[in-house]
Amino acid sequence: MTDNHLNLAPGAEFDLIRRFLPHAPRLGREDVRVGPGDDCAVVTGDGIAVSVDLSVEDVHFRREWLTPREVGCRAASAALSDLAAVAARPIGLLCALAVAEEETDDLAMDVMDGVREAADRSGCVVLGGDLTRSPGPIIIDVTVLGECPAPVLRSGATPGDEIWVTGRLGAASVTVARLLRGEIPHREAEEAFACPIPRIREARWLAERKLPSAMIDLSDGLAGDAAHISSASGVSLVLERDAIPVHPAVRTETADDGDALRYAVAGGEDYELCFTAAPGALEAHAAAFAAEFDLPLTRVGVVEEGAGVSWRRSDGGVEPLDLHGFQHFSAP
Amino acid sequence: MTDNHLNLAPGAEFDLIRRFLPHAPRLGREDVRVGPGDDCAVVTGDGIAVSVDLSVEDVHFRREWLTPREVGCRAASAALSDLAAVAARPIGLLCALAVAEEETDDLAMDVMDGVREAADRSGCVVLGGDLTRSPGPIIIDVTVLGECPAPVLRSGATPGDEIWVTGRLGAASVTVARLLRGEIPHREAEEAFACPIPRIREARWLAERKLPSAMIDLSDGLAGDAAHISSASGVSLVLERDAIPVHPAVRTETADDGDALRYAVAGGEDYELCFTAAPGALEAHAAAFAAEFDLPLTRVGVVEEGAGVSWRRSDGGVEPLDLHGFQHFSAP
Repeated sequence: MTDNHLNLAPGAEFDLIRRFLPHAPRLGREDVRVGPGDDCAVVTGDGIAVSVDLSVEDVHFRREWLTPREVGCRAASAALSDLAAVAARPIGLLCALAVAEEETDDLAMDVMDGVREAADRSGCVVLGGDLTRSPGPIIIDVTVLGECPAPVLRSGATPGDEIWVTGRLGAASVTVARLLRGEIPHREAEEAFACPIPRIREARWLAERKLPSAMIDLSDGLAGDAAHISSASGVSLVLERDAIPVHPAVRTETADDGDALRYAVAGGEDYELCFTAAPGALEAHAAAFAAEFDLPLTRVGVVEEGAGVSWRRSDGGVEPLDLHGFQHFSAP
Repeated sequence: MTDNHLNLAPGAEFDLIRRFLPHAPRLGREDVRVGPGDDCAVVTGDGIAVSVDLSVEDVHFRREWLTPREVGCRAASAALSDLAAVAARPIGLLCALAVAEEETDDLAMDVMDGVREAADRSGCVVLGGDLTRSPGPIIIDVTVLGECPAPVLRSGATPGDEIWVTGRLGAASVTVARLLRGEIPHREAEEAFACPIPRIREARWLAERKLPSAMIDLSDGLAGDAAHISSASGVSLVLERDAIPVHPAVRTETADDGDALRYAVAGGEDYELCFTAAPGALEAHAAAFAAEFDLPLTRVGVVEEGAGVSWRRSDGGVEPLDLHGFQHFSAP
């Protein structure tokens, strides 16, 4: 049973998406299993997951921050991460690319090399695309297709579930902060920003063991993406401050814990997974996961009755999480 | 048996596409039936056709030429036309849209209304999308998904086949020409430009009767798109000058036959179908087609041994077709 009511978190961008994608479970069609509102749409009885991700120069990246190859790799990886979020097996991607007339063809080739690198790394192929002129900015739009007979949606969390995340958080946003200040970023953090690794294999490993009850990839930041699970599942997500796995590059960059947490929880584009699971279900699997993927798996909170995303206080009470999800920075 | 060698027509844009989409039939994967180089990629055994089409303000359209609703309708219709080209049944589309920060949300809503109108008209639904900021131009990218157990490809034409087109040609390019001169376009021609009707039902009707041996939609213009069939099928396409169905709006706009033919054959974005069929195969069906769709079906030439696209001379010989496919006009 899939649920695809358009239950996105609060926010101006999501208000607009709600306006143009009316609340319509399955859209009344047999051939649509998951409609708008999750990380992917899923069509046909067999389950083909599809998602699209648009990146525009000076909105999602600046040319002085990334090589053309990294522009392609990052755009494709961000799109592939949506397949990870529903635990799909990537089949292929299509890339629509626009560059200015005066740019050399080499720019387009370098961007496409990065796209192909990301596709290879996730075990899929470049199926096609579109190449056109841009009036200025590099524009890259990646459509991903995956096989997904049993999608893991945002809507499956129930009170009592634990909340887990893969990897360490905050490297991408701390890199953007340094770049915006004109400083040279930490190398490891910069790599996480320039060519993030979508957690395709990890998601499938977890889903094969039927562990995640709900799942999302962290593109807006943990606070923002947890709010999507909260809205879609009709539950409250309570995060524990001390449990958040902060990326080491964030620690060296920040004055105190509060500042570090802001990058780790409100920063976006880490492309790690956040999922919920029945209490205790991960215990038997966490060590095998760590051994298989050399990636930490961290329990960061619990699902409760209610709505929204909160912090657990040390006295056991909860307080609203006042951080905001990542907002795309404005053009310079 | 499908053939998906990357046999595109000559041309700088296609040279670049050939460079970044290596010649790779089926891409060596069981789950890819048609790879790069046709109107759609087709994945999985059941046949899911997918295509993507990127439209950028001041490259593909100007804001003073189209209402926001028409921008959306035209972008979605152009993408859906690729499903028609392989005779797929549309399931749904995803729309990634970028508008400038200072633009009102109403602009995005109006564009999406046009997208939804085009989706409705073709019997499919909006499955999802992406909404983001643009540094200036409206950017709209539409991904279409269709069911296509038996795709009609560009590669099936054989010598002796007839060449057919639906509808009348040249209305879109004659409209662009008028708009570029600052003149008011003909109403009927302008509608064909602003919100073209993809020939979804017509393509499926033809394919259900197993009539087309090869098919393409006319986005680059008949000369350019016939060249794609020629390259993909390894044959020569010989067009007959007097047979080309020129749109009436083109006749009123042009001084002589040569000028009118230039719009009809070299102009692009008519989104009619061009297909090849066994000799005589259409005879029993042309009247039923015309009655069903109120749309002319015209035999415009024959497929011969050889390569390229030519004109038949009145003495029976052939001469090279010296018209060029539509090139996207440069930004003003």
